Amino acid sequence: MANRRDFFKVAAIGSAAILAQGCSSISQNSKTMKLKKQTKILFQGDSITDGRRNRNSQGNPNDISGLGIWYPLQATGNLLVKYPQADLQIYNRGISGHGVKHLQDRWQADCVDMKPDILSILIGVNDFWHRAKADRGYFGTADSYDKGYDQLLAETVKALPDTKLIICEPFILKTGAVNDDWYPAFDGYRAAARKLAKKYNATFVPFQQMFDDACKLAEAKYWLYDGVHPSLAGSQLMAEKWMQTCFGC
Amino acid sequence: MANRRDFFKVAAIGSAAILAQGCSSISQNSKTMKLKKQTKILFQGDSITDGRRNRNSQGNPNDISGLGIWYPLQATGNLLVKYPQADLQIYNRGISGHGVKHLQDRWQADCVDMKPDILSILIGVNDFWHRAKADRGYFGTADSYDKGYDQLLAETVKALPDTKLIICEPFILKTGAVNDDWYPAFDGYRAAARKLAKKYNATFVPFQQMFDDACKLAEAKYWLYDGVHPSLAGSQLMAEKWMQTCFGC
Repeated sequence: MANRRDFFKVAAIGSAAILAQGCSSISQNSKTMKLKKQTKILFQGDSITDGRRNRNSQGNPNDISGLGIWYPLQATGNLLVKYPQADLQIYNRGISGHGVKHLQDRWQADCVDMKPDILSILIGVNDFWHRAKADRGYFGTADSYDKGYDQLLAETVKALPDTKLIICEPFILKTGAVNDDWYPAFDGYRAAARKLAKKYNATFVPFQQMFDDACKLAEAKYWLYDGVHPSLAGSQLMAEKWMQTCFGC
Repeated sequence: MANRRDFFKVAAIGSAAILAQGCSSISQNSKTMKLKKQTKILFQGDSITDGRRNRNSQGNPNDISGLGIWYPLQATGNLLVKYPQADLQIYNRGISGHGVKHLQDRWQADCVDMKPDILSILIGVNDFWHRAKADRGYFGTADSYDKGYDQLLAETVKALPDTKLIICEPFILKTGAVNDDWYPAFDGYRAAARKLAKKYNATFVPFQQMFDDACKLAEAKYWLYDGVHPSLAGSQLMAEKWMQTCFGC
């Protein structure tokens, strides 16, 4: 077991002012996660996590092209600056088009075998979306999403009992591909993710309310260009929310 | 002329807490820049600005692939979240391998004709580096860098008298491609950039001291993988310094 000296706090490394802005007080909060030397963080999910990442670089931690273009990249940049002494090892294994059943199929290789210290999952939008695409041959419901995700998480905590879990809320905005057909059905997927976060003692990142609030300031497509996938602004907002929720800064 | 109501301040748009963290007090400082509706920001420079940007997307403002992978991308993400009501238009025209003389050759099309409201330039490392590469046929000095840059800026303020200038300090760390041969010669390039920023009333972004400070916390290659080009951590640090210096947040 690591002792207290193994943990890094932003407040402790603030010798260069730029390296510690805005985090020092909140990072003392025991609800936020602590980082020990070489903490391994794994991002898992669908296209929103994938972000066209370069598979050839996926074995290199903290690699710009290996992290894709969206929130895992921006969150990693943030973490690497805030905790430069921690020698963090951050990976992305999101795959575009995936839902819970796809994660189940590849979980051993793409999660369990990697032994992450922190595992962040964002999954759910395809579990709904693909119901409408006959060629996908998938007709899941919020209930089957709930059951499958529950099973996946049960396996995860059994195989990786020391891994800290982060469950990100799936989200949409009514623009582009998202029309009235998504409501209220999609709410059930969001509710299931929130319920499972509580059940498995995971940190829950409430993205939907964040995007709803953001739409008071700029139109939906400013944040999610097609209602599902983030713009640069939306992705940055996700990374900031993820950092604030999980690390208090 | 825009009146006061046309300007956006972070403090004014803080209805969603996540959208305004850490900027509100400093953004009142009159030294930082103000943003009016549809402010056009242009990043200019060499490979560090270029960041393998997609030329096919360079005409689309705020485009992830068009902005490249380094500090212009991360700074833009930051700006788009901090000023969502401003409808900012941000472009990158950095080109890998370029020095001052290359900027002079393409300045009309890649800067003057674009009529930016804010112009941020980072140039200088190739003006030194290429002296050592015989196949480049270039043998400039700190003095010729100074004179060429001065001429470029004189042209710029004449053609674009209302454009706010940002001059970023060129920087290196002694690792990878950077050895003792770079010292103290490279100091002259840094000094010239600082002097010209003062002469042309530009905001100066002091990157060298920032990287020197950062090396107290992690080794040089953690920030600049070859002594010249940034890692994800180095790029994020640049973006944060750029934001803090120019926009106070």
